[in-house]
Amino acid sequence: MKKATFYHAGCPVCVNAEQELLNLIDTSKVQVEIVHLGERTEKISNAENEGVKSVPALVLDNGNVLHINHGATLKEVKG
Amino acid sequence: MKKATFYHAGCPVCVNAEQELLNLIDTSKVQVEIVHLGERTEKISNAENEGVKSVPALVLDNGNVLHINHGATLKEVKG
Repeated sequence: MKKATFYHAGCPVCVNAEQELLNLIDTSKVQVEIVHLGERTEKISNAENEGVKSVPALVLDNGNVLHINHGATLKEVKG
Repeated sequence: MKKATFYHAGCPVCVNAEQELLNLIDTSKVQVEIVHLGERTEKISNAENEGVKSVPALVLDNGNVLHINHGATLKEVKG
C-alpha cells in the first residue's frame, strides 16, 4: 500500500482539489492522509520539510510533491 | 467511465507529474487521454478554452482543471 499526504488549509481551492483528487485516486493502492494545516498547525513544519510550498499539495511516499492549483502559500497559512 | 485529459509539453516537471498521477489514478474509473501540446499544437486552443493556464494540467470531465506543479505557461508552450 502506497501512502500519500494531502495538505490543505480549508480554502475553497483546497476543498475543490481534495474532492477531485479523492475521486481520481485508486484508494485500493494508495492510502491518503488528509491534514488540515489550519487546524493542525504543528504539522506545518512537517509539510515544509517535505517540500510543500503552498496548499493544496499532495506529498507522495517517494518524496515527490504535487502542488495542485494554488490556494495559499505556507507563509499565509502560518499567518 | 469518467474521462480526463492530461496536457503537458514534455518538460521534466510534466513528465514527473504524469508518472506520479498515472500511478495514483484509478484507471478502472477514469480514462486519461494524454496530450503533448508541443507535438499537437492544434490542441493548444482546446486547452486554453478548457481553462488551462500552464502545464502540466489535468482537465476533468466536470470542467474542473487541476494545475499540477508548474512546468511552463501556455504562452511559453506557444513559443
